[in-house]
Amino acid sequence: MRRSPNTPLVEEPSQLELRDGRRARGRRSRTAVLERSVQMASRDGLEGLTIGALAADIGVHKSSVHALFGSKEELQLATLAAARAILIDQVIVPALSSDEGIRRLEAVGDAWFDYLASDVFSGGCFLCAASTEMDGRPGPLRDAVASVMREWIAVLGANIEAAIAADELRADVDPAAMAFRLNALGMAANWQRQLLNDLTGIEYARSAWRAELQGLRARRPGRRRSRRALRPQEGDGTS
Amino acid sequence: MRRSPNTPLVEEPSQLELRDGRRARGRRSRTAVLERSVQMASRDGLEGLTIGALAADIGVHKSSVHALFGSKEELQLATLAAARAILIDQVIVPALSSDEGIRRLEAVGDAWFDYLASDVFSGGCFLCAASTEMDGRPGPLRDAVASVMREWIAVLGANIEAAIAADELRADVDPAAMAFRLNALGMAANWQRQLLNDLTGIEYARSAWRAELQGLRARRPGRRRSRRALRPQEGDGTS
Repeated sequence: MRRSPNTPLVEEPSQLELRDGRRARGRRSRTAVLERSVQMASRDGLEGLTIGALAADIGVHKSSVHALFGSKEELQLATLAAARAILIDQVIVPALSSDEGIRRLEAVGDAWFDYLASDVFSGGCFLCAASTEMDGRPGPLRDAVASVMREWIAVLGANIEAAIAADELRADVDPAAMAFRLNALGMAANWQRQLLNDLTGIEYARSAWRAELQGLRARRPGRRRSRRALRPQEGDGTS
Repeated sequence: MRRSPNTPLVEEPSQLELRDGRRARGRRSRTAVLERSVQMASRDGLEGLTIGALAADIGVHKSSVHALFGSKEELQLATLAAARAILIDQVIVPALSSDEGIRRLEAVGDAWFDYLASDVFSGGCFLCAASTEMDGRPGPLRDAVASVMREWIAVLGANIEAAIAADELRADVDPAAMAFRLNALGMAANWQRQLLNDLTGIEYARSAWRAELQGLRARRPGRRRSRRALRPQEGDGTS
């Protein structure tokens, strides 16, 4: 079964599968192998992720990995789906408890920068790396990476639109341009951490993300605004 | 001779070399081969750049390329130096006619976005791709990529500092944080063009770069400012 990159990897097993021990074991093996493959691909790139290299990394025979994935491309697509599921779990799910709009944008930013500062992937943000690696290699894998990145930008855009509709952000904000600027901050923070071993980019990005949201707040004449909530980041210089 | 990535590739031949036909021919061959290798590496990555693959791409015997570069690592370092020389030629040199400080930052931004919109490298910004590819691979090549990127950030930082000193930018601007934000815009614009085939990111980045410079302008009470020069980007929503 080819797993589409649009299907979150972590799913509840169906009743049918619970009655079928082999399928349940196959699923557990697959999940265990994917835990290693996402780490390997985050370090060495998706293109370096072959069934042989992964089997050697885990210390099993190539045929065991082949039985689970069938082809290099299926392994790569399944690994991408696993990385997407981790991103959702780390960055999107924690923000769902905040209201759609500016509060969720704040929460997504906080969760994203925590994730970029963490060691979830040993080689840094999986999708940042996969984006750059795949952009010159047409095919199903590149399309799948582009699809995940479009989803991410769409999450930002939808919340910007909700914030404009709720009068939290100025009506003249261009949602696509703002989503572009917010995304740029995280990609650069990941770059600075991974290439230069420098975590300060993550804090610059966190401040700039907040300043972007504050700087574009809708003015609501007649309503008393909280000074605390609207006070610019001190020393940030962007608001 | 190993060429350091800090040495611009395009140099005037010395008198000694002009008297020595073999060295001059070797230099021409090297330059011609590097023109192909930067394109190849921009598409396939620096790691995929081997003497064998490059020789096959050019249609010559492996030994000819080996005679020019000696090892895969020397070829990779020379290719990086060639890419750096192109970046300098396309982005830094055109801005040198503008005064240091805010004018040069404007000129560097314009030249950078023109370069990102162009097809100078067939696989997009060489250094953006090399940064992500190399960040998980310790060694001289990664160090050389990091060194070039530090130079680039330093050019931005030095001009921000000059702009603050000249009272063009606010005194509370953090040069490193601002350089981070400016760099983020171009990296994301390159990403959006290359992965999503979408040039709008370059225009979002161009507007955001100008808005960043305008939004942090020092206020000079008592001086009459040009309304034209200070007018925010219309519809941009960031100033």
